Amino acid sequence: MNKNNRREDIVLTAAKLFRKKGYNAVSMRDLAAEMGIKAASLYNHISSKQEILASIVLSVAKDFVGHIDTVVPQPIASIEKLTSIIHHHIELTAEQTDFLACMNNDWIHLDEENKTLYLSLRKEYEAKFREILRVGMAKNELKNIHIEISVFGILTTLRTLYVWYAKKDVVSLKTLKTDLPRLLLDGLID
Amino acid sequence: MNKNNRREDIVLTAAKLFRKKGYNAVSMRDLAAEMGIKAASLYNHISSKQEILASIVLSVAKDFVGHIDTVVPQPIASIEKLTSIIHHHIELTAEQTDFLACMNNDWIHLDEENKTLYLSLRKEYEAKFREILRVGMAKNELKNIHIEISVFGILTTLRTLYVWYAKKDVVSLKTLKTDLPRLLLDGLID
Repeated sequence: MNKNNRREDIVLTAAKLFRKKGYNAVSMRDLAAEMGIKAASLYNHISSKQEILASIVLSVAKDFVGHIDTVVPQPIASIEKLTSIIHHHIELTAEQTDFLACMNNDWIHLDEENKTLYLSLRKEYEAKFREILRVGMAKNELKNIHIEISVFGILTTLRTLYVWYAKKDVVSLKTLKTDLPRLLLDGLID
Repeated sequence: MNKNNRREDIVLTAAKLFRKKGYNAVSMRDLAAEMGIKAASLYNHISSKQEILASIVLSVAKDFVGHIDTVVPQPIASIEKLTSIIHHHIELTAEQTDFLACMNNDWIHLDEENKTLYLSLRKEYEAKFREILRVGMAKNELKNIHIEISVFGILTTLRTLYVWYAKKDVVSLKTLKTDLPRLLLDGLID
């Protein structure tokens, strides 16, 4: 296993442990034990628990901003942009559940510099999401529903999805990708 | 101030403190200090911190079940039932923010008996909510969107409302009562 793969492996294992026990309850020693290596050899790959946390949280936050940045300039209707964003949330929920959980539960434990960076990425994402709604409403592609209420309702559901999805394996990914955008965008009534 | 009013006062003050600091971080001594009375005299009205927590959490949980119980048998369309439920959530959010926050954050600290009772009330509420959707879909009053996805999306937004609403005093209660049901039931697109 080369050095990068080993680092990646450490971060993936840490995300799983952080999700299960919370960032504060996991020590570098626990992490080494979980991986079956000596604590000292962790430090060949990573300098601190904080570095691991920042790596997890910021990779998810950057992934979200990166995705919305590819969506915004596309010459497609607002509804298609929103559908693409919802699909991206669903894909990350399914593929990176531990990372999402860790971001949501443990970002508060980032050091000041990383916390500021995380919060600014989060703010940037919300601003871009809000702008898609604003433009969609201005073009009459979307109904005129109070924009802060709309941002809150949709993003809250998407951000909580990983908690619910992990418990409900009754719903397939395929159904989720069809029916969650219907619920969030089209609603229950005609 | 009579005995019942004083007990109510204690519970209201406790809810405010629990919300601010978390249940575990608040002592009966803190509570007495906040009320400007002696800790010993608290015990004339209340037997323990646990009793206060149970009183808060169960009063909200029973209020929710009580409301949905009045809605279910009414001879009105599903959409009106759902609107009434959303309005009730908004009213409780505005009027009992501390209680709602305490229920959401601190129910986990209930003793086993009260925790079981709380979880059964929560389950009962969800089952009745799910049944309104099921009947509405069967009658073609509601679109056929996966029922668990619908329950999750709507209840998650309603349960998180108090967190968001406390921060966003830009939205009036009147707008919230108009636009939140529109968003949750009618959606952003035609």
